[in-house]
This record gives sequence, structure tokens and C-alpha cells, in this order.
Amino acid sequence: MTGPASEAALAANRYGKSAIRLVKIVRGADRHAVRDLTVAISLEGDFAGSYVDGDNSLVVATDTMKNTVYAFAREHLTGAVEAFGSVLARHFVAVPQVEQATVSIEEHAWRPVGDTGDAFSRDRSSTRTAVVSATRDEITVDAGIADLTLMKTAKSAFAGFPRDQYTTLPDIDDRIMATKLSATWRYLDETEFEASFTAIVRTLLDVFAAHESASVQHSIWLIGRAIVDRHPEVAEVTLTLPNLHHWLADLSPFGQPNDREIFIATTEPHGLIQATVRRGD
Amino acid sequence: MTGPASEAALAANRYGKSAIRLVKIVRGADRHAVRDLTVAISLEGDFAGSYVDGDNSLVVATDTMKNTVYAFAREHLTGAVEAFGSVLARHFVAVPQVEQATVSIEEHAWRPVGDTGDAFSRDRSSTRTAVVSATRDEITVDAGIADLTLMKTAKSAFAGFPRDQYTTLPDIDDRIMATKLSATWRYLDETEFEASFTAIVRTLLDVFAAHESASVQHSIWLIGRAIVDRHPEVAEVTLTLPNLHHWLADLSPFGQPNDREIFIATTEPHGLIQATVRRGD
Amino acid sequence: MTGPASEAALAANRYGKSAIRLVKIVRGADRHAVRDLTVAISLEGDFAGSYVDGDNSLVVATDTMKNTVYAFAREHLTGAVEAFGSVLARHFVAVPQVEQATVSIEEHAWRPVGDTGDAFSRDRSSTRTAVVSATRDEITVDAGIADLTLMKTAKSAFAGFPRDQYTTLPDIDDRIMATKLSATWRYLDETEFEASFTAIVRTLLDVFAAHESASVQHSIWLIGRAIVDRHPEVAEVTLTLPNLHHWLADLSPFGQPNDREIFIATTEPHGLIQATVRRGD
Amino acid sequence: MTGPASEAALAANRYGKSAIRLVKIVRGADRHAVRDLTVAISLEGDFAGSYVDGDNSLVVATDTMKNTVYAFAREHLTGAVEAFGSVLARHFVAVPQVEQATVSIEEHAWRPVGDTGDAFSRDRSSTRTAVVSATRDEITVDAGIADLTLMKTAKSAFAGFPRDQYTTLPDIDDRIMATKLSATWRYLDETEFEASFTAIVRTLLDVFAAHESASVQHSIWLIGRAIVDRHPEVAEVTLTLPNLHHWLADLSPFGQPNDREIFIATTEPHGLIQATVRRGD
Repeated sequence: MTGPASEAALAANRYGKSAIRLVKIVRGADRHAVRDLTVAISLEGDFAGSYVDGDNSLVVATDTMKNTVYAFAREHLTGAVEAFGSVLARHFVAVPQVEQATVSIEEHAWRPVGDTGDAFSRDRSSTRTAVVSATRDEITVDAGIADLTLMKTAKSAFAGFPRDQYTTLPDIDDRIMATKLSATWRYLDETEFEASFTAIVRTLLDVFAAHESASVQHSIWLIGRAIVDRHPEVAEVTLTLPNLHHWLADLSPFGQPNDREIFIATTEPHGLIQATVRRGD
Repeated sequence: MTGPASEAALAANRYGKSAIRLVKIVRGADRHAVRDLTVAISLEGDFAGSYVDGDNSLVVATDTMKNTVYAFAREHLTGAVEAFGSVLARHFVAVPQVEQATVSIEEHAWRPVGDTGDAFSRDRSSTRTAVVSATRDEITVDAGIADLTLMKTAKSAFAGFPRDQYTTLPDIDDRIMATKLSATWRYLDETEFEASFTAIVRTLLDVFAAHESASVQHSIWLIGRAIVDRHPEVAEVTLTLPNLHHWLADLSPFGQPNDREIFIATTEPHGLIQATVRRGD
Repeated sequence: MTGPASEAALAANRYGKSAIRLVKIVRGADRHAVRDLTVAISLEGDFAGSYVDGDNSLVVATDTMKNTVYAFAREHLTGAVEAFGSVLARHFVAVPQVEQATVSIEEHAWRPVGDTGDAFSRDRSSTRTAVVSATRDEITVDAGIADLTLMKTAKSAFAGFPRDQYTTLPDIDDRIMATKLSATWRYLDETEFEASFTAIVRTLLDVFAAHESASVQHSIWLIGRAIVDRHPEVAEVTLTLPNLHHWLADLSPFGQPNDREIFIATTEPHGLIQATVRRGD
Repeated sequence: MTGPASEAALAANRYGKSAIRLVKIVRGADRHAVRDLTVAISLEGDFAGSYVDGDNSLVVATDTMKNTVYAFAREHLTGAVEAFGSVLARHFVAVPQVEQATVSIEEHAWRPVGDTGDAFSRDRSSTRTAVVSATRDEITVDAGIADLTLMKTAKSAFAGFPRDQYTTLPDIDDRIMATKLSATWRYLDETEFEASFTAIVRTLLDVFAAHESASVQHSIWLIGRAIVDRHPEVAEVTLTLPNLHHWLADLSPFGQPNDREIFIATTEPHGLIQATVRRGD
């Protein structure tokens, strides 16, 4: 590996294990519960030697990360995923060469089927997410929800935008707004993670249903503002909303009216709007 | 295109339009409803000329099929997808050169969010399916459900299978059974499609939860038999169940027991079991 | 499980293992080769007892199928996938309770990178397929190619089709034809599988490039006819071609012409055309 | 919208259009060429009013962005995607309320089929990427390659890593390394984009094939260092390599040896290693 002097230097780097698929069956007296997680671990720290010198003496094997997740699940996956993520993040950041450990978890929901207590159906309507990041000094917890497909069939407009030579879209005062929403919010501190998650999603859905939208941007603000204002445990929330366009089908060639009734659903192209709303200083 | 005599002959053929994405907003006085369909049309008939001679004079353009779906949705998408499919199938089979028209529909469910009547969340937990096939003389209606991910955390075994030199799987009397179920059933006749669909899915879920499974095959039989026995409108039902293996994590290297608690969820490879249960003669 | 007499009877059924991911490294003196397969095994036969009685005594475990694939790969995966599939199909159909064994294989191509002989890049441009089905008396071999995305930028038209009240598509004499082709062909007999595959794909591509297309149907016929006529080992070929529409972008609002230059590529909706061309009697 | 004073403030935000699917046919005298792009536009700037007040008067409609991409393609998509992206980014950043415009492009390759000059096959083996970001003062160009699936069947080891109570992975001195590589590199300045792209990918593949890997981290460094050292136009390169594990199949129950020959290919879980190598100061 010796050779002419190199100008190259190692900059930001991280490594870990992704797509660790973990199911825990909680066998209660009367009924079972299913915890179904996809976990990823990522570490930053004193790992330059593994890159530059091929020296693995400080490399926590990603296989070991995986084993740790399964081993910790028995004892520590007893409550919210944010808490499980915190235990894992603290474990890994306690390794001397690790400066930051990030644990990302998706939780997949299973609902009981019937009342036997041992049959379940996966609810794919959304995914709960958590990202816990720990350094020696600090731990941050971001909770969230992803894959939540929503539609407003009224109270959504888009008008008054500027027109240049490439603008053909007409103003519209009553359109369909459809989106596959992702939201993540950072907690100021440890909180009652389960209760907070439930309440924040409730706020999100309530505002989504109630508000008059002037644009997806406007909707993001109203939802984000409500989350910040109603949930004092939240430091900030980031919302990402694709605008999944539904175009009114032109039925005039067939002699039919179409008053906001028949739409062509599309995914390509789509708008994509993202903003963070934070608690002001 | 003249050339040496060809030995080739046109055999089975079909053509049509797939992935027609249709959303209909039903604007009631108090609340809206969302119908969200993916439709495919496929025709068979006197189309050999289009292949062999490049003669399109009998080819119903697939673009026309798409237009027809949107145009018919206003008037005819007022009830079950099976009924909408029947109207479309009858329309296309009435074209003289068409001998068989098959209309396949997936319906994607949207649930109300809040109580404003104009906000909805997509329920991705399963997909309702319908395939209507019409000839000059006959129409068949297959209803179904797809993408239904289910799990049994008890009452599932797999034992007593033969062992050869390549067999390493031990007998197990209490395993997790997880699957992403698809079911389609053929109606003997026109029926109350909405009520039948709801009742048959209820039977499917009830039996799934209640039964003691000796294998996925056994589960399929018990579910299929119940559907045939409890729903006289059903001629036959076909069930397709992947066996999505959940392997018990080996925690013994970490000094931990693991009594059916911590599992590794997998999708590759998976078992795949399919059977039809029909009403006997 | 006793209860009122059931009207249900078991009809068609099959079971097996899918998504068996197998990589074999062939370590030659100078260079390695990578064989990368996804294998599925499916059995039919005397399995009613496993469904109706929950009796597994005749059930070849799907886990055993998977083991068999890996075990056989060392000795038997030495040539074409069709040959490997035949060995597996014959093995499974030799089990007394099996009446038909179907082995489906996808082969993923890897091309050498550089000339070290031990580095490879996956060529994702198409997938080679083989389906071998064996009964006690007979073995059929279907070879094929899938995921082959093709485009003609000239010599493709679609005109002269009938017009009804729902027809808006204009005749066009020079359009883009784009498709993601799948083809499978049945061999009359054992053949030189490697040479046949290469030659048939060559014919397919040659005709695709050379022909004047009046429609996707027409293209299918010309390709299928050529395969039957030029490859006497082929009994029949089935071609499935989605029509992935490319719509001319309307640039007139921007004062620009657009003479078949700028297109909007789409996948939803798409045409779907399938036909079998067989060797005539 | 008046109500109690809010603590919420708008922080980082961006919006735009994604998944703009553009195909341009370049009709040369002898042969055509296909340019196939997926484009995304994203803007940052003085857009707070659209969020906080629902005031769209400064919002460049995402539909207008899409139109602009198609309109510009005729005149400006004549060379490398980096150049096309630069024209688009400069156009959007010239809008007064825009402070930063980011144009992301994926280019999908099509190779000629036959020699007619008008038939093409899509090469899905990798995707070329470009991200051009312009502010009033500065433009940055990141080029890259994605979806490049690579394998080393020799000269890859992973040993000498630390062992804790959760470590079960043995040291291995000859393993398979498989990855689906993404690389992006930032140019110091405008360059000959086509020539640079080709040469940098060549370097990447050459080093991938030639090097002895002590770990994926080590491979990333060696590739990144070579790109920086051999290509003076590159400021830095970021490499993201999943480690797609191939586990040696245990054939010992079947009485067979398995000397690095038969592997089980997996994707879940996988390692994930990312690092940036930059030109040192």
C-alpha cells in the first residue's frame, strides 16, 4: 500500500447494521402481543484505522450489533421503541472508541384478530419510527410516523401563485390533496413515549381533517404549529409531504360533466414539500 | 413480409390495459366517500389479424378501454366493485369481435379521519380484489382479498413429516405461523356482493384465529372448508399462503433462554402453499 | 374437527419453497465464475391428507427442498440452469407421493470487472428464466428471458383501429414503442441449452430491431414467428409485452415545436399484450 | 386562524417536484440516441409566507417546474446531465425569491440493439446521478453512480475485530464481498463531465477488482483515495456500501464439504458503511 504521497483524507464516516428484523412475542396470561421491529445501528467514532490501515482492532462487528439487538430484546423491549432504542444507544456509546451511536427503529403494528388472543393482522396503514442518537454527553430522541397516506376531498385549494412563461396550471379553489406523510419530532426530554406518540398523531390527524389548506406548505405549517403548541414535550417537528396529484378526468369528449367526481390518481411526477417547525426561542 | 413458408401459428392471445388508476369522490350531503380502484381490462376474440397481418381494424385500442373505465365510473361505480366490473365486462363483450372480456379490479380502502366527512386515511392492511369474466353466454365473478398479513402466535405446529438425507428441520409443536394471504372465491351466481365479501372475510379471520394448525396446508383446508360450508353463494375458494418463517433466535451464546419469545423474521426463502376448495358434486 | 357433514372437497393444490437464493463460486485456475440463482420448487401429488386430516406423513418439508437445492448445487450446477432444474425435478418426482415436480429458476448475470478474474458486476439488464416440470412420464423444459426493457424509436405505428364514442387516441404513424419484455419458450426435447438460449435471444433482439411494427401485437407475432421458424428445437413461445407509453410533451404553450423529440415516460396505465406462437401441426 | 399566541416558528424548508420522467430522442442522420432522465427540482428561499400565511404569491408552482424541465430539454439537454442540471439550477435561482435551487437527475442508460440505429435495450446495471445546487453566488456539482452491484470472490477478509459477550462471528480470511454501491463526488470546478464520469467509474472498478480488502471500510478508503488522487477535478467522494452477506451453506449434514463454493445470498440484515474521502488541505 506504499506509494506516492496521497492527497486524500478521511472525512465523515459511519457504519453499522441495517434491516435487523426482530419479532418478540409477549405471552401474557390471557393474550399475546406482537412486537415487530426493523432495527438499524450506526456508529461514529475512532474508526479511521479500519479505513486507512485496514486495522479492525477497534471495529465493533456489525454481526455483533445484530446479536446485541436480539439479546437485548428479551430484557429491554418492554415498552416504547424509544426506550428500547435508548438502551441500545447507551450500550454502544459506552464502547470506548464510539463517539456517537444512532439507533433507528421502525415498528410495524399488529392488531388482534378475533378474541383468541393469539391471532393478529398486520396493520400496514402507517409505520411508527424512532431514532435515538447518543453521544457521551447527550441523547436525542426523535419519534415519528411514516407511510401514512392521507386525503382531503374538500377544503384544499391552490391559487394565487405567480405565472411565468412556463406556467400552465390554473388556479383551483377545490382540489383533492393526497399525500403519503412522514413526520418526525424531537422530544425536549424523556417523556411518556407511548402517550406522547398517541396524542401527537391524534393532533396531526385532527388538524389534517379540520384545516382549510391553501397549499401543502400551508398544511404543513398548520399541522406542525399545532404539534408544537399542544405538546410541550416537542422541541421541533419535521413534516415531509409528497403531493400525490389527482387530476380531474376530462369526460367532455364523452358528453359527460365531471364536477370534482372522477379523478386520475398519479404518483409520477409528484410535488415534495418538507419543513421543520420548531419551538421559538 | 413474404418469405419462406412459416411453420408458426398464433395460439392463445389476449391484450388490454392495466394499471388504470381511478379515484371517485362520492359527495354526500354530510360526508364524502372515496372509491380508489386499480382496473385492468383484457380481451380475447377475433384479433388474429392484428398479429399476423398487422391489421388493426378490429383492435379496440387500449386507450379506449381506459377512457371507457373513467366514463363508466360516473354512472356505474355506485356499489360493489363486482357490479362495476360486470358492467364493464358486459360492455366489452358486446363488441362483436370480442369473445371474452376480463375485468380485474383492486379496491384500496380509505377510512374516515376525524368527523369532518372530507378527510381520509388509506388502510393498507389488505386489498379487495374482483375479477369478472364475461363471454357471450356466461359471466363469472371471482371476489377476493389480497395482501392480508396474518400471524398465529399459538396453535400452530409442524411435525410428523418424512425425513430423508436432506432433512434437518426438527418437529415443532408450537411455532409462529405468519403469512401474507390471498384468497379468491367464485360466486355461483349474482349475490349481495358487499354483504358476501364482509361475511366471507369474517369467516376467514374467525377460522384463522380459532383453529389448531398442523401445517399451512391444514390451515388452508380449514379456512376454505368453512367458507364453502358457511357461504352457500360460493362455488369454490382458492387460498395462497406463503409461509413467512420466523426463526427462534439462538440466544444461548449470550447465556439467555429463549422460550418462543425472540424471533428472526424472514422472507427469503419462504414456503408457498396454494389450494382450491370447492363445493363437492 | 368433527361437525356437520361438509360439502367441501379439495381440488387443485400445490406447495413448495420459493425465493431460495443460491450463489455458487466456480473457482477456476485463472478466473472465477459466479452463478447466482433464485430457485423455487413446487410439488403436486398425494398430499390431500395434509390438508384434510392434518397428516404430514407424506409432506416433503419445504425446508428439505431448500436443503436439497443447496446440496445438489455442488455436484449438479455445472451447466445450464435448465439442466440443473431437470436434475432437481427428477429427484423430487422420484418421491413416491409426488406426481409432478416443478422447478423454477431465475439466473442473475454477473460480468467480470477488470481482468483479475475475481471481481464481478451484476448485469441487471435482463433475467434468464427456466421452468422444468417433471411427471412420472414426461419432462418439459421452458426457457426464457424476463425484465428485458426495450425501445424502438422508429418503425413503430398504431393506426386504423376502430373508433367508438370513447375513442380519443389519434392514429399515429411514428411513435415510440417501449416495453419490458418477457418471453418463455418450450423446447421439443433436450437441447444444447446454452447455445439455444443465446441464439434465441439473438433472434428476438434482431427482429425487434429490424421489423416495422403496426402494433405491439404485430411485433409479438413477428418475433414469435422468427423464433419458431429459425429454431427448430422450439415447440412454442409465449411473449408478454407491456406497452409503456411515452407521450409527446405538449410544448406549444411555450412556443416550441416538438417533432417526436421530447416525451413523458409513463408506466401507469400501460397496455399489456400476450400471445403464444406455436409450431403448426 | 387567529388564536392564542403560538410558540411555533418555521425553520428549514424546501419544496419542489420529484419523479419528472423525461425521454429525449436525438434523431441523428444515421442513428438515434435515447436520453432517459428522472429529474427532481427543489427550491429554498423566501417562502415563509406560503407556510405561515397561506400566501402563494411567491410560490413557483411545482407544475411550472415540471413544464420548465420539458421545455428546457429541447434546447439544453445536449450534453452531460451535469450541464443540463446547471442550466436548470441557474434558471430557478434567478427567480428573485429563490435563494437555492437544487436539481437532482438520474440518467438511465440505453444501449443500441442491433445496428439499425433505432432500437435500444435499457442497461439497468447502474444509474448515473447528478445533483447541481446553485445559490446566488455559487454552484456545486455532484456527480455519481448508484445501483452498481459488485462482488469480489477473493481478496476479501474480515478478521481481528474485538470480541465481546455478544460476538459470535469468527475471523475469516477469504470471504465473498458483495455490495450495491453508490458513489457521489463533488467537482472542484466545471469539468469535462462526460470524460470525468467515465474515468472515475473506471478507477472505481479498477480498484475494486485489484485491491486486497481487510473490510468494507478498507475498500471504501482505497477506492475513495484512488479517485481523489487520480482525478484532480474531484474535491471529495462519498461512498456508501451495504455489505450484502453471503453465508457459506452448511452442507456437512449431507456429508459434503463446502470450500467457499456454495453460498446463501441474503439482504436482511446487511451491513451499511459510508464514508467521505476528501482532498486534504
